[in-house]
Order: sequence, then C-alpha cells, then structure tokens
Amino acid sequence: MTQAVGYAAQHSFSRLKPITFERDDPKAREVDIEILYCGVCHSDIHQVKNEWSNTVYPCMPGHEIVGRVTRIGSAVSRHKVGDMVGVGCMVDSCRACEPCRSHEENYCEGPNSWLATYNGPMMPKAKVLTGTNMYGRDNTYGGYSSSIVAPEDFVLKIPAALKPEVAAPILCAGVTTYSPMKHWGVKSGDHVGIIGFGGLGDMAAKIAVAMGARVTIFTRTKEKLEEARRLGAEGVLESDKEAQGKLKASFDFMLSTIPEKHDLNPFMPMLKRDRTIVVVGALEPLAPVNNQERAMHRTSVAGSIIGSIADTQEVLDFCAKHSIGPDIQVIPIQDINHAYKEVLNGDVRFRYVIDMASLKQEEA
Amino acid sequence: MTQAVGYAAQHSFSRLKPITFERDDPKAREVDIEILYCGVCHSDIHQVKNEWSNTVYPCMPGHEIVGRVTRIGSAVSRHKVGDMVGVGCMVDSCRACEPCRSHEENYCEGPNSWLATYNGPMMPKAKVLTGTNMYGRDNTYGGYSSSIVAPEDFVLKIPAALKPEVAAPILCAGVTTYSPMKHWGVKSGDHVGIIGFGGLGDMAAKIAVAMGARVTIFTRTKEKLEEARRLGAEGVLESDKEAQGKLKASFDFMLSTIPEKHDLNPFMPMLKRDRTIVVVGALEPLAPVNNQERAMHRTSVAGSIIGSIADTQEVLDFCAKHSIGPDIQVIPIQDINHAYKEVLNGDVRFRYVIDMASLKQEEA
Repeated sequence: MTQAVGYAAQHSFSRLKPITFERDDPKAREVDIEILYCGVCHSDIHQVKNEWSNTVYPCMPGHEIVGRVTRIGSAVSRHKVGDMVGVGCMVDSCRACEPCRSHEENYCEGPNSWLATYNGPMMPKAKVLTGTNMYGRDNTYGGYSSSIVAPEDFVLKIPAALKPEVAAPILCAGVTTYSPMKHWGVKSGDHVGIIGFGGLGDMAAKIAVAMGARVTIFTRTKEKLEEARRLGAEGVLESDKEAQGKLKASFDFMLSTIPEKHDLNPFMPMLKRDRTIVVVGALEPLAPVNNQERAMHRTSVAGSIIGSIADTQEVLDFCAKHSIGPDIQVIPIQDINHAYKEVLNGDVRFRYVIDMASLKQEEA
Repeated sequence: MTQAVGYAAQHSFSRLKPITFERDDPKAREVDIEILYCGVCHSDIHQVKNEWSNTVYPCMPGHEIVGRVTRIGSAVSRHKVGDMVGVGCMVDSCRACEPCRSHEENYCEGPNSWLATYNGPMMPKAKVLTGTNMYGRDNTYGGYSSSIVAPEDFVLKIPAALKPEVAAPILCAGVTTYSPMKHWGVKSGDHVGIIGFGGLGDMAAKIAVAMGARVTIFTRTKEKLEEARRLGAEGVLESDKEAQGKLKASFDFMLSTIPEKHDLNPFMPMLKRDRTIVVVGALEPLAPVNNQERAMHRTSVAGSIIGSIADTQEVLDFCAKHSIGPDIQVIPIQDINHAYKEVLNGDVRFRYVIDMASLKQEEA
C-alpha cells in the first residue's frame, strides 16, 4: 500500500475536497504511475452529481490521466520506470467475452462489463442478477489524485511529440470521437458533420480535418464560428435553418457530441442515404426521432462509447503525427469546483486539465 | 381515356364509397391492367384518415395490386397482353438521381421523390421549395379499382406458382420486410427478431424462416404464440420480461413492424453488439430511445421504406420458390369499411385481399 491524496465528492450535492487514501502496490502485471496531469471531462460532473443514478461515493473522478511510471510489477514488459504513460476510461475488462477477445474491451460483455477508471465496474454487483463482482471492488478512484495503479495492458504510451498535458484529454475526448469515425469508415473527401462544439466537438473536428474530410460544425454559439474556421472547418449555427436547408442530404457521417438530451430531427435530413448519426455525448434518452424521415433515406442513429485500448493508442499516435490536440487550460486542482461551474455555464472553448503538482500543497 | 370505377374517401372522416373516374390510355412505355385483387394495407387506413397530414382527396387507396395486362403501349417490351402482373407502392420515380440510377427508386431524391401508386408524389408540389411537380399530378388513384395504367418498368411479373390473391400483399408487406433483411445481410443461422405480428410481421417471419434464420416473434397476443410455432418460429409475449431477459444480446437483426408509435427500449438490450433494429412499420416519432444502452453495445436504430422494384421482383420469386405467402382473407369491396374496423380493433391474423370481381355490381 502507498499513501495517496486526491479530490473527491462525498455526496451528490457536495463539492470536491481533498482526501487521503491508499493505493495498492502494483501486482505482477501492473504499473504504478505518478500522475502529472488529468483532464476534466463533462462526464466527471455527471458522475459527481449522480446524474446517471449509479454513483458510488466517495467519488474521485478523472479518466484523462498522464503521468510517469514509478514502479512496475515483476511480469511487466510493455512499460518501464520513467516512461510517460496514460490511463483513459478503463482500467480492466473481463478479458474472456467475444468483444474482449476481439480487442474491443469498451464493449465488454462480462458480468460487470469493463472496470471504469473511477466509480468501479460499468455493471455494479447490485445490477447483475447473479450478484457477482469479478473485479472485487465496487468503487475505483480516478485521476484527480497523486498516483494510480493499473494493469499494464490498460496503460497507453504517450508519444514524445505530445506535451503530456495536451495528451491527457485525448485519452477520453480524443478516442470517443476517433473510434466511431474509424468504425464507420470516415475517409478523405467525406463530408463530416460535428454536432456540438465543446471538448468532444473540438477533438472530433480536428481529427476529421486531419483525416482529410470536409468538416461542418454545428454550434449554438456565434463566437465559435470563427473558431471553426480556424480549425479548417465550416461553422453553422444550430439556429440557422437556411444554412441547414442547403446541407440537405450532404453528409457522409455525423457525430453528435452534445452531452445531454437533445433533438436529432433537424439533423436527420442532412444525412446522405444509408448514412449514420452516431451519438457519443449523451448517455440518456434522446428526444423522439421521427421515423418517417429516417425510413425515407434508410438512415440510422447509432451509439458509441469511448474506444478500445488499441483505438486509444492509435488516436494518441494519430494526434502526434498530425500535430493536433485539444485546446487546453491548465488549472490547479484547488480550482476544480469553479471549473465545473464554468463547464456547466456554457461550452468552454478549451478543455480544463489539472496540473497535479498543485496537489503537493494538500499533502503538506 | 377509359371509364373506371373504384372506392374512395372524400374526407378524412368519411367512409370509402364507389366513384367512377377516368384512367389515361397507356403511353408508349405503359401497360393497362385489369385489376383482379388488391391487398388492404394498414397504411391505407392511415392515409384515408389523413394521419400523416398529407392526404389528397378523393383518396383511393390500394398498392398491393395484381391483375392481367389488357393493353400495352407501342414500346412496351417487358409485358404482353394476358400476363399476370403486379403493381406495388410506386408507379414512377425521377429516374435521374443517384438512388434511381442505382435501382433504389424507393429512395428517389428527385424533387418530388417517387410517385406513389395512390395519393400522388411522396413530396407533393406544395412541400417542394421550387413548387415543381415533375409528375404533373398531385393525386393518383390506387388499386381499390377496376384498372390501372403504369410504366412497364414499375410493373412486376407474378410467378405462375403464386396464386394472384396471395401474391398481392407481397407487393407491399413482402418487400417491406424482405428489403431490409437483404440490405442488412440476414443469412442462414442468424437469429432474427420480429417485433409485431400483424400483416408485416407474418411476412417477415415467413421470409426469415425461409432464409434459414432462427426466428423469434414478439407479440402482444397470447393466441398468436401457437401461430408463431406453426411458422417454425418462437413466440414471445411483449409482456413476458423473463423470456426477454434470456434473450439479452442474442439477435443478429431485429425488425419492428408495429404500425404506430412504440417503444424500442425493451428490445435494444436483445441486440448483439454492432447490430441494428430496423423500423419499417411506424412513419412517425417513436418513443425516446435511451442512448446509454445503445452506446454500450454500439447498436443502431434504422428506418427502411418498402423496397426497390428489383427487390419486389426478387421477393415475389423468393416466395414462389419457397412456397410462402401471406395468410389472406378474400373479401368483396363492399366490405372494405368493415375490414378497416377489424384491422384497427386488433392485429388481424390474416391480410385482407379485395376480390375486384365484386366491383362489377357497382358498374351495373
């Protein structure tokens, strides 16, 4: 065991505050990581506030983790002490089901699905008919902390060309948008629509542009139109029905990154025949979709959640190769509660990343 | 011009009554058909009652038409006088757009989309920004009538092995279910779920069984469980949550044939990863779909409308080859208003087919 310190919420209504806790020593195939940076994801806020009705307290969020390996287990072969590494949304999976064997751990069909980096298994013991918990823990503590221990094959290599603080959000926002674009075969010359222009939308647009796609971003915020142009994309206001009319049947792929309940009906007619809108931002019921429009062009609405470990390594390497990454603002952890308010107040144009050096003063 | 007689509604609230009207003489590439049988589709009722807010009156339904060629235009090469032929949901399309050139006329993207067998273009002039009507008519009269004239390439050949009255519903109910099963690649050994067990569900189940699939039918009606077994399928009550729990992640493909607003959420967990529920029955907003379940298994909800002319010929030939067809009840046209009530009162186990010989007494 080693002593660790992190920021956690004790209840759905409470602010994040420092707590001390213990991390296990690394087992044979695990590595111990000193956390340098951790990104702030909108889902951290959903989870802290128990908006998915599944939060286990204390809740210590953080699944965009970058740091240095400090210790390795006896059988570790993929990483060595001193390596710059990352941990994303998962720290384990059942490793036996068909998706796990196909290297799609994010779709794990084991009794508890995958083990989330914080808040424990995606399917907690209480939700499984057999009452099993293959991971032995119903809570996990995430990256708003000084260190983390994880199995080596759930630990990513951070390319040298990426600053560690810039790499952090790629571990969630990056892979969540990259994985569906890869799965649905986005290619050079395609017209890609990105719905919502927050942290996910920003990464989605940059990745799609780097893939060679023509990119159109839909945003509620007039100020962001210029930002879209800066990325090499076209910006369209969600309120601009005239511009949207001209985009009828024009998209090869659309990605909805809006992190709450929203209405897809205005976007459905913009899909070409046989194409798909993939919803990655909202994990809740969407507004009713009119099946008439969908049937008339044989279009689809699909969901996708994060990406596999292989996808995560791919998107890190892709971002390094194309020199892209999130626009970030580095904050001390003491500002986390204020940062949450800012995220909730509107789409911040950048991703907050916590500099864990700031945790030192909590330990003192 | 020739005199014709048919049953039509004058208003959304009125019963179908006989009217006399004129059919054009066949042009060079058109055929004139004496109608022998016409199936009764649930969408006939939606249209008569203006439930899609687009009905043009008088409304003469009927798009499951079988009859004999009586006259052909000078350039007709596909059919000859005396042939047993069929007309389904479409009688023309723009023939210039990408879907039309790809022989998917049912997804026509011309200014007025395809020309429906009754009620005119799918996109009426009033709904097109340019106010165009490439078909020159905003209403068409369907198969509840003595004759119809249609372009030869929208006229199907009825295989000799199919009774004409049995072939009729295949032209809509058959192709509407066959086309998505073909498009999404249903194959022998797949587990196929059919949601709803009316006219579409009956055809869907028979076709899927003939394709070699294991078929499970979801129905609200206990009496239909035996009927499912008779088709070589398994029946599950929509209220039987225990049976449904055992079907988690078990389907390669699901088809929803329910002809009105319904809730897909109970069915989403039954899909295998990366698979699709296709909704063909409802042309309206569905209940909100929870994106959490969809994202966790990268599943999709898609729409599909009828099928192409090529698909329609294929399903006719497929049914003839496998000796399958709808369970029908032949009625005189004078019973049509009563038949509508029966359809609305619950899922009739058979498809009503009108024997047009009964029209003769209206002409007298």
